[in-house]
Order: sequence, then structure tokens, then C-alpha cells
Amino acid sequence: MNTKLQWLRNKMSSLDLQGLILTNPTNIRYLTNIEAEGILLLTRKENIYITDARYIEHVHSTLTLFDEIIVYDLHDVSKEDYENFFLFCENVGFEEYDVSYAKYKEYIRKFKIHNFVETEHMIEKQRMIKDAEEIAQIEKACDITDNCFSYILSYIKPGMTEKQIANEIDEYFKQRTDGIAFETIVASGENTSKPHAVPTERKIQNKDIITIDMGCRVNGYCSDMTRTIFVGEVPEQIKPIYDLVLKNQTQTEEQYKDGASTRLLTKMVENDFKLHGYDLVHSLGHGVGLEIHEAPYISYSSDTQLRENMVVTNEPGIYIPGKFGIRIEDTIQITKFGCISLTKSEKNYIII
Amino acid sequence: MNTKLQWLRNKMSSLDLQGLILTNPTNIRYLTNIEAEGILLLTRKENIYITDARYIEHVHSTLTLFDEIIVYDLHDVSKEDYENFFLFCENVGFEEYDVSYAKYKEYIRKFKIHNFVETEHMIEKQRMIKDAEEIAQIEKACDITDNCFSYILSYIKPGMTEKQIANEIDEYFKQRTDGIAFETIVASGENTSKPHAVPTERKIQNKDIITIDMGCRVNGYCSDMTRTIFVGEVPEQIKPIYDLVLKNQTQTEEQYKDGASTRLLTKMVENDFKLHGYDLVHSLGHGVGLEIHEAPYISYSSDTQLRENMVVTNEPGIYIPGKFGIRIEDTIQITKFGCISLTKSEKNYIII
Repeated sequence: MNTKLQWLRNKMSSLDLQGLILTNPTNIRYLTNIEAEGILLLTRKENIYITDARYIEHVHSTLTLFDEIIVYDLHDVSKEDYENFFLFCENVGFEEYDVSYAKYKEYIRKFKIHNFVETEHMIEKQRMIKDAEEIAQIEKACDITDNCFSYILSYIKPGMTEKQIANEIDEYFKQRTDGIAFETIVASGENTSKPHAVPTERKIQNKDIITIDMGCRVNGYCSDMTRTIFVGEVPEQIKPIYDLVLKNQTQTEEQYKDGASTRLLTKMVENDFKLHGYDLVHSLGHGVGLEIHEAPYISYSSDTQLRENMVVTNEPGIYIPGKFGIRIEDTIQITKFGCISLTKSEKNYIII
Repeated sequence: MNTKLQWLRNKMSSLDLQGLILTNPTNIRYLTNIEAEGILLLTRKENIYITDARYIEHVHSTLTLFDEIIVYDLHDVSKEDYENFFLFCENVGFEEYDVSYAKYKEYIRKFKIHNFVETEHMIEKQRMIKDAEEIAQIEKACDITDNCFSYILSYIKPGMTEKQIANEIDEYFKQRTDGIAFETIVASGENTSKPHAVPTERKIQNKDIITIDMGCRVNGYCSDMTRTIFVGEVPEQIKPIYDLVLKNQTQTEEQYKDGASTRLLTKMVENDFKLHGYDLVHSLGHGVGLEIHEAPYISYSSDTQLRENMVVTNEPGIYIPGKFGIRIEDTIQITKFGCISLTKSEKNYIII
């Protein structure tokens, strides 16, 4: 059995689960490499993946004998099969954040489940800590993101639209990776005041400020980087805010290490922003892996300790509604005594 | 209040719901045009959208006074607010196919809900019937899809990879629409035997068969079309299967009209395929709208009657594992006495 499934079997034992139904596609991808529509069952003795005819060929070509997963076509699974999968299982786990209320009721009926147990993100928690292979993929995605950024700096000219620049980034990633990890943000002028701006037909002008938030995907694993850059010059009224964001981004990076509290990290930035009259309107960071946003979430509302080989973003931002916004973001690997910034693009004033 | 929300208020009355929590983003988009992360509450007197700081500006710029929706920042909603939203509401509806089991429990606690009622896809059912404005968007998306297909026929040359062709399609859509409606499929040779193939680095060769499944999105609304084409010539062993698929696609189109049973339509194709020794491995079609796959689902397992102004696909396919596959698909508007194929590309042998 592969090492991730073996870990899960041990976890099940420790939780007194005799069976498990997994439905979250990212968790299934993590455990099996399968990218399809289907569910993964861990019964007393077997690992079973149920999918439909559309994916059967693909699933077979993904799995190796080593995975020890039996693949079923949905249409070949009888009522009796469903009732037998978890026969004599006292406790069967499920993913309560993924299973809809309707499915929850359906599973209990269909599988004749005795005691259906919430598993409290146990796989997401395990996914927070990346192994060497996972980090290698993220590193690769971050390298390509840095290269793309340096290419795009030479590409941007006044008169181009935000959309045109975003398309060029997407195309760059498409040619070198599995593609974008999320919708690329290119926001200019007053559009930068929206943290989640969507690229528009607005044309880049002289003295503009531009926020670029981008990332790609390599073998499923994501990168995430934001830089705020300037056309021609850095406007005087923007400088102190840029400096404040950068100072906090740098200080946060100095604090990112095994054992650091995500709540304290957030509080530190929030306090400094408030001291200057600004708010931290979004979280300070998030985990990056098979999903662009995944645990741990670095914000005031959750308290997690950073751990060695977590990969997280560090992205303080200040937004003045209707005027402009500044965000600087890196993807960062936590180490025992500090961290490594996996995206390495320039963070001081970038003037094009 | 906008007409869609007005419809929903009437529906609530008829179901004796005094409150409603909507979480499905597509349903919220349908009712309000909002594309963000948030939830829509219909309380006794008000329509409330709760989102977070990232989306506030965008949501305000989307809504008009006419919508009569009050927007809250998540962080400004207190424990008491939550408890007051549905005060004196006997029955509050929720979307049981969208709300996870964990959220279901959280909502009951947070909103102090007395009787939490499953709403059985009531909005998805309403979304099946398109109004004139929605059909106009889908028509536009289908037109551009036809134009893209005719462009791509002149673009494809032996030696190009599947990925290269898929990228060209994506770029074509990107320049003219909101982008692709789903991951474009370009499958060649034996790869066509996978209904959900992902474009590879395989190079197009002479005598190849190529399946192209593509669609774009215009103001949120999708198009969906598949054609199977040939390079140089139509191989003799493929002809009878192509003819069989095309015959069934044409006969189905003749049967698509107000009142037709989706189960009978499917059975008709399935029988004819079986008579020739083949299976219908996926459904015959699906609704197309704000989602690329939505109700109604045209398959043996569900029985719906087609209705005027539904927009659905018609896509029979035959797949010989490891060898090749044929699928021909149009996006179709159902009318009172027949239907209109909104995608209009050639369906007879296309040889490039």
C-alpha cells in the first residue's frame, strides 16, 4: 500500500474507525493521485474506488499495483454490495465539511451505516506538512512564477489593458506548467483597491500602480505570489503605505518558523497597521499545496502553530477604497529555525 | 425587487417557508448577478447578502437599488444579528445538496433555526427554463463556438499536438468571451476512446481521428459542442460507428420537443446501440446554462419531461476502449413543437 494510505490506515485504527468514506477530490488526489469523479472507501480489508465509465480507463492508468486499490464502475455496484462494504463496522468515518446534508442522509441509508463519525479535517491536517516530493513540485512552480514575473516586467507597456497582461501571464504558465493555479489578478490604478480584482479593459497609464497576483500549478501543486509595481515613478502619497506593507511583510518572514503562532503573527501586523490608521482586511496568509488556499489559515480567527515543512503565503495588504491598494506576497516554506521564501522576486520599489 | 427574487418570494409562500438560506453560488448568481463568496438570506422582510471585505466593493457595483438587497460585511454581523434574522420564522429552507453536514449543524446553532427544511433543488428546477435574455447569451456563446470550430479546422495540421490545438481554442475564446466553459477536450487516435480525455503531447498524424469537445461562456452562460473529425480520410472500420452515432444524434434531435421524456429518449439510443453491439456509457445529454452541466439530466436514471425553453445537449457517443471513440454533440433549445440547434457546425464526415 502506498505510504499515504498506510498513514491513513494507522490513523483509522487510532480513532477506532473500521471504515471510511472519502469524497473530497483533493484528499483523494493526495492519497491516490486519482483525478476523477468518484469516492474512495476504506473498508476493513480493502481500498475501493468507485467511479463511472467516463473515468475507468484514466483511473486504471493512474494507479499502480502498489496502491492496492480496487476500482469499481458505479453501475456494477449492487444494492447488496453497498450494504456489504461496511458490514460489521461499528464506526465509519466521513468528511463532514465535504459531504452535503443530502449525501449524508443517502450514505447512511445506502451503506447501512451504524455510527457515522465526523473526521474533523484529519486528512487536510496531514496535508499541511509537505514531504520532500511535494516541496519539490511547489519549488518548481515558484521558480516558474519568478521567471514569469521577470518576463512580464519587460512585457508591460503603457496602453496595454489589464486583461492583455493577465492573458500573457496565463499563456506563459500554460506553455510551461499545468496552467494557472487561480485566476490571475492584474489590477491597475484605482482597481488595485479591490483585493480580489478581476482584470478589466482598463489601459495602463503613466504613473499607474499595478498589482499582479499570480501562480501556476506543477503536477497539481501551486505557487502564489503578489507584487505591486509602479509605472514611471512611485507617487509620493503611496510610498509610506508601500513601505508599511513591505516592512510588515519582511518582519513576518523573520517570524515565520516552526512553533510560531498564526494568531500572534496576524496580531502583530494588524497592530502595526492600526497604529498607522489602516486595517488588515484579509488574512495574513494561507497554506499552499494541492489547493491554492488550504490549511493552515494564518489569521486572527484561527490559532495554529506553524510547523517545519508547512508551505504558506505571507501576504499583508492595505486597501484604500476607490483609491489604491498594496499587497506583497510570497510562498514560503517553514523550516526548523526559520523559513525559505520559495518565490524570490524583488520586493523593493519596482518601477517599469 | 428583481423578477427572479420576486418569483422566489412567491415560491417560499407556497411552501410555507418564512425564511431561506441560499449558499449555492450559481443559484445566488442567477438570482442576483453577484459573483462572490457569501450567503443570501431571505428573511421575513429583507433580502440580505453576507460577504467579506474582499468582495464588498464588487458586490455593491453589481447590485442595483432595484434588487433590494442589503449587503453586510461578515465581520459586522454579531451573534445577536444571526439570532434575529429568522426570529419568529417557523420554517427556514436551505439547500441540502449544497450545504455540507458541518455547515448544516453550524447554521441551526448560529441562526437558532426552529425547523430547517430541505428545498429539493427548487432553484435549479426553475433555472431549467431559460428566459429570453438567458437564451440570447447562450445563442451568442454557441455562435462563437461554431466560428471557433470553423477556424480550428483550418488551423489543425499533422505534427501539431493535442495540447497546442486545445490552447488555440482556449485563446480564441479568451479573446472573444469570458473564456472556456470547461476544460477543452482535444483527443486524437486511441485517446478518443476516453470520453473525458485530457489533451496530451500526442502529435496529430495522417489518418487520425480527432474528437474536439469545446464551449465558451458569455455573461456567465455556456455553450457545449463536440465534433469528431478525420485527417486525410475516414478509416473504413470507423465509418459504420460514426454513421450509427450520427443517425442517433439526428433522430434524437427530431424527438427533442416540449413533453418528450428524457428516459424514453435515452432508451431509444441505448437500444439502437445495443442492437449493434455497443453501449451508451454516458448520459445522452444535460442542461446548459450558468453551469456547463445542470438540470435536466437526459439519462436513463432520471425521468424529466423536456419543456419549452430548456437548453440541453444532445451527445450520443460510442467508445471502443484502447481503440477510438465517436461523439457528436450540439447545444439545443427546446421549443413547443420541436427544437432549435444553437450550435450549427457540420455533422457529416469532416475531413481535414
